[in-house]
Amino acid sequence: MRRLDEWRVTDTGTSQEDILANGNRMLMGNGYLGYRGTTEEADGGDMSATIVSGLYDRYGELWREPVNVPNALSVRLFTLGGEALTLGSRFLLSHEQGLDFRYGIVSRVTSWKVEGVTVTVRSERFASMASVHSMLLRYAVETDGPLTLVLERGIDCAVRDLNGPHLGAFTHSGTASAPLAEARTLELGIPVRVSSAAAADFPDPADTIRTSRRGGAFFGGEYVLQCRKGVPRILTVHAQVSAGSDPDAGSFVPAADPFGGASGEYHFREELSRHKAAWDAIWADGDVVVEGDDDARRALRYSLYQLQIIAPRHGGSLSIPARGLSGQTYKGAVFWDTEMFMAPYFLATDPAVARSFVGYRVRTLEGARRKAAEYGLRGAFYAWESQETGDDACSDFNVTDVFTGRPQRTYFRDKQLHISADVVYGIREYLSMTGDWSILADGAFEVIVECARFYLSCVWYSPVRERYEILDVIGPDEYHERVNNNAFTNRMALLVFRTLRECEAELARQGSTLAPEVYAATGFDSELPLLADVESRLYVPAPGPDGVIEQFDGYFRLEDASVEEVKSRLLDPKEYWGGGNGVASNTRVIKQADVVVLLNLFPRDYDDRVKRANLDFYERRTEHGSSLSACMYSLLACEVGDPQWAYPFFRKTAEIDLTGESKQFAGLVYIGGTHPAANGGAWLSAVRGFCGLSVSDGEISLSPRLPESWTKVSFTLRLRGRRHSITVTKDGYTLC
Amino acid sequence: MRRLDEWRVTDTGTSQEDILANGNRMLMGNGYLGYRGTTEEADGGDMSATIVSGLYDRYGELWREPVNVPNALSVRLFTLGGEALTLGSRFLLSHEQGLDFRYGIVSRVTSWKVEGVTVTVRSERFASMASVHSMLLRYAVETDGPLTLVLERGIDCAVRDLNGPHLGAFTHSGTASAPLAEARTLELGIPVRVSSAAAADFPDPADTIRTSRRGGAFFGGEYVLQCRKGVPRILTVHAQVSAGSDPDAGSFVPAADPFGGASGEYHFREELSRHKAAWDAIWADGDVVVEGDDDARRALRYSLYQLQIIAPRHGGSLSIPARGLSGQTYKGAVFWDTEMFMAPYFLATDPAVARSFVGYRVRTLEGARRKAAEYGLRGAFYAWESQETGDDACSDFNVTDVFTGRPQRTYFRDKQLHISADVVYGIREYLSMTGDWSILADGAFEVIVECARFYLSCVWYSPVRERYEILDVIGPDEYHERVNNNAFTNRMALLVFRTLRECEAELARQGSTLAPEVYAATGFDSELPLLADVESRLYVPAPGPDGVIEQFDGYFRLEDASVEEVKSRLLDPKEYWGGGNGVASNTRVIKQADVVVLLNLFPRDYDDRVKRANLDFYERRTEHGSSLSACMYSLLACEVGDPQWAYPFFRKTAEIDLTGESKQFAGLVYIGGTHPAANGGAWLSAVRGFCGLSVSDGEISLSPRLPESWTKVSFTLRLRGRRHSITVTKDGYTLC
Repeated sequence: MRRLDEWRVTDTGTSQEDILANGNRMLMGNGYLGYRGTTEEADGGDMSATIVSGLYDRYGELWREPVNVPNALSVRLFTLGGEALTLGSRFLLSHEQGLDFRYGIVSRVTSWKVEGVTVTVRSERFASMASVHSMLLRYAVETDGPLTLVLERGIDCAVRDLNGPHLGAFTHSGTASAPLAEARTLELGIPVRVSSAAAADFPDPADTIRTSRRGGAFFGGEYVLQCRKGVPRILTVHAQVSAGSDPDAGSFVPAADPFGGASGEYHFREELSRHKAAWDAIWADGDVVVEGDDDARRALRYSLYQLQIIAPRHGGSLSIPARGLSGQTYKGAVFWDTEMFMAPYFLATDPAVARSFVGYRVRTLEGARRKAAEYGLRGAFYAWESQETGDDACSDFNVTDVFTGRPQRTYFRDKQLHISADVVYGIREYLSMTGDWSILADGAFEVIVECARFYLSCVWYSPVRERYEILDVIGPDEYHERVNNNAFTNRMALLVFRTLRECEAELARQGSTLAPEVYAATGFDSELPLLADVESRLYVPAPGPDGVIEQFDGYFRLEDASVEEVKSRLLDPKEYWGGGNGVASNTRVIKQADVVVLLNLFPRDYDDRVKRANLDFYERRTEHGSSLSACMYSLLACEVGDPQWAYPFFRKTAEIDLTGESKQFAGLVYIGGTHPAANGGAWLSAVRGFCGLSVSDGEISLSPRLPESWTKVSFTLRLRGRRHSITVTKDGYTLC
Repeated sequence: MRRLDEWRVTDTGTSQEDILANGNRMLMGNGYLGYRGTTEEADGGDMSATIVSGLYDRYGELWREPVNVPNALSVRLFTLGGEALTLGSRFLLSHEQGLDFRYGIVSRVTSWKVEGVTVTVRSERFASMASVHSMLLRYAVETDGPLTLVLERGIDCAVRDLNGPHLGAFTHSGTASAPLAEARTLELGIPVRVSSAAAADFPDPADTIRTSRRGGAFFGGEYVLQCRKGVPRILTVHAQVSAGSDPDAGSFVPAADPFGGASGEYHFREELSRHKAAWDAIWADGDVVVEGDDDARRALRYSLYQLQIIAPRHGGSLSIPARGLSGQTYKGAVFWDTEMFMAPYFLATDPAVARSFVGYRVRTLEGARRKAAEYGLRGAFYAWESQETGDDACSDFNVTDVFTGRPQRTYFRDKQLHISADVVYGIREYLSMTGDWSILADGAFEVIVECARFYLSCVWYSPVRERYEILDVIGPDEYHERVNNNAFTNRMALLVFRTLRECEAELARQGSTLAPEVYAATGFDSELPLLADVESRLYVPAPGPDGVIEQFDGYFRLEDASVEEVKSRLLDPKEYWGGGNGVASNTRVIKQADVVVLLNLFPRDYDDRVKRANLDFYERRTEHGSSLSACMYSLLACEVGDPQWAYPFFRKTAEIDLTGESKQFAGLVYIGGTHPAANGGAWLSAVRGFCGLSVSDGEISLSPRLPESWTKVSFTLRLRGRRHSITVTKDGYTLC
């Protein structure tokens, strides 16, 4: 049972399933690192993890993934007989853990009964928003009678990787109370440093410290606590993490004594105060306050929390992976999710973060060029699953067939052509919202040129139909592979060509010679005539007489089975619905919004009748097997003036990481973690959807269409350097 | 154990597996009908079948298939107690059945021991080559002591269909000794008539006839035989079959008394004599005599027998299904097999049969037009599985997944684009071998035009590569679906364009106005400029530096696993190697000759180095999962001067229906039957391969490269109206 406090999520569950779910639900982070919401004593089996943004490693032939760096907040409590006090212990009395998502503070109260004495542990911890390398922990043990306990704490290097190990031999230095562990990643030799300084505010001289008896890759100390009633033993830990992969902060060396002589209690309060101040600054622009619907307000704020703790503010050219910093699933890879679902929130509230997303794509342009060349194409084919170099982390066999256990050929890597256009869309939105044309000279214009060149090398001319077409792709709906003329993909390619034209014109207007310079440097001059031809004759599927846009050529010829019918054909709950033999592949059932995304991105291209027809047609055929889906339906339902239709989709989107009710497996592959795209989708639904915010040519427009229960929504919008406070009610809005 | 007699195949097996295998191995037929090599008493469980060329029916939603017409040669023997004497009987002493494949006579000798008395049945039967509606049977029962037996014979209408039933209510007329059964097919109402007149040359007046006591759909009589030692009871049956689907012979009405008053024995001898004369005429041109290698001679002749018994001589516009007239598998459909593998033999020996193949494609042009239109294409897209109308009998789900039991999407129907070019290839070969240009005016020119138009609607222009390409196809190798620029397919499309040009030029030379008339009538005029452009810029993959032609774009990037390795990954012996999740799909392992077919069809386009390089490269990567494969490797090995390499492939091809060792299942679908394409491949291997026969511009060329054991090969060649007798030895040849 979780209580629904305004800024708080709590849980009392102690099953393995609860532990995994709370690992995501109570994730803490500061953009530089993420630390899963496990208890201090958790080990690899509980999927405890510390993930550093942009740090990847590949072990053997397994796929590359984020490195799980050593756990510097490890604390374990034992009876004198050596029995561990854990959530699974036979001594457990009660447990409750919680997350204050206003300030990203994870806390817990857990009690055990040992030899008639109640032992209670209270802890709270945070990843400092004021100092990205730091995590602070306050850990208190109290008993209601005399009892000797052993407390072991330090750096646990024996963390579990999905596809590890990733770190070579550890060097240990420092002391039992301030250990430092250093190692290098196996693949690229990137240095990783983790320190964990402890201050023990123990009132009793009988408590002793000694070097931990635990062998192996654990560095730290062991305290023998002679506990008495009413005298808590309080331990403060200041952990520091740095990894060399971060371009700016890689050379950070943990301070030997971060306490600087202060007591643990004092130091914790000081650090917490700086941390809270940083959060207050974040919420000053980043909060959205819904009134009239407490559940919605809370879920939306929780979603924004999840985005803020993974927002890269430190690097300048980092992006956000599809599962944020919640673990190693999805290879820690960056997908189109960032540009499409997360960037809008940051563009509206903290454009520097959005600039980092663009910087990431500029930095990984070479990887995208390599990928295009690999397929005999030109320009930049951005990775479907992008890590630090932009080379595609996605394999050709991304799913395991449940019936044979054999890898199954999927086409995410080679056929999801829309990704380059999504990157350009992100740049275009950045330009539109910020008016900051400087990114073009900082590499973004070259990205646009190379993406345009890419689509020129992808198009085919049909001499019979006298038009260019784009063949053999996967659109957003991944259940239908290798389709021709996916409406979304074709329209997005056209957007790339048009964005290039617009940027070229704007640069010329500004007197810049960047465009001709880039054209000359990249040899794009010679492709300009083809660009003009393709731009004018690229086929984009149009609505039919009933207003419905066919998702791709031949979609309407597929079996029109219902989602329930298709689901009933599953023989194994974990089997993949798409691919060669999937239950959905040959039906009209789609995984996620596809045409509906198109209508949301190009709202002015289609009238209300078309929007409603497609919403109605596709919604009943969508499995929503992707967390990217619900918010798109929510948005379009608002767009056609039906907020009550939209509302359940909004709730589903905003609560996905609160409830933890999301797909945990794709085929046999574990894909659990947080869902930052859905978190971003919650903001899109609320602000662009229900409040009807849109921006065109620097002009703000609002069309309130609040759900029944909502009385008011307040939020901030940064547009082209100006900060606007907006309040929307059922009848109107104020903007200042 | 089968003895290897010169013109005879025998078998003593009685297991169900033997019965199924002999059904194919000892098939008899005359082009109009095929009758499986089962015993007279066989029933549906033994897969007894009478298949009429060109007669199809569809039951419910199951796939269309040939109709199994009533069994007019049914004879059953019972003890007085009613126990049936069958191959499975507890009384069985011995059994041997055989096929004389010089004259297509199926015989058997079977003995049972009943109450201490040995009962022996001897029978022989044939499908008359002199009278296509007739089958004759001589059936003798003999005992070595007194025994009363019951013999029941007549028309068994309770035959088993794979996807039946196909016939409506039967009308029975005639008498117990000469019953006539009539019915109509359920789908199209085509009349089917079967009669079975018997003459009982029974010496003993104690033998009585009465109407069969068997109820249901059995029409005939029952004899109570008071057998004595040394006095055989001999029954002669003259069965007649007609079905209205045959354009010429559909109105045939069985004669009420085919014996015309003659005794059974006399009538049988007379009919057999006429039948043998017809076979002698067939062998006069159709035989190929190999000397020095008895096994090879026998296997080759057996293969030619299998072709002759299914060659349509009666209709003028019929073709041969992939499993001949051996049953209902493969939907009785006509594939490219006919043009590529069977037609060459008939072109060389009996051009009228080959003309019928062309006539069949002319007759089914409308179906091919409908198929093209169905896919938004133009012209004629010939059916992958063609029945009587030319509409495609192939479904989109042609394989059942062994792991899920669910239908599996296959792309044979929609992506095997080469079929239309194969049809044009067949016409071109007909013209080349016969010089009979009259077929162009009889519809073949329009077929060529519509096939050219089809490929014009299939090609795509790549503006970057500045060439036309053909995308998303399946080539001959069916394990790799949806590939781009399959070398074979692209070259064959080019052949279509060139054939159109050549025919146009020849017609003009002959003063014919056919070409402009057809262009005007079909609106093809306006496509001539495009035709010229595509013809000049169609991409045909060329040999690489090592001489190897990449089978399709990206083939060389696939995993280079061996056939054995791929096979070892099978988890179920019946699982399909291709398709979405097949073990071969993502490797270089191919089902059958693909590039090798290309090299065989266009021998003058490639030098010996290229041929050898591709033979070497692809042979080791070929599973030979199709019976069309081995002969192509045999041919190419001869072409590069290596007959010993070729020889095992020849044997495999020539013996496929003798040994019965072929794939019996594709996924879970039974595909057993005869293999006329392999039978034709045996002739190709022997005559075009080992003898090196080729014809160009009416000139015969021979390049003997006989296998070690062969001393001489004699055969006949009809070329442009002239008959040539050819003898090839190791050192040379004679031609007269």
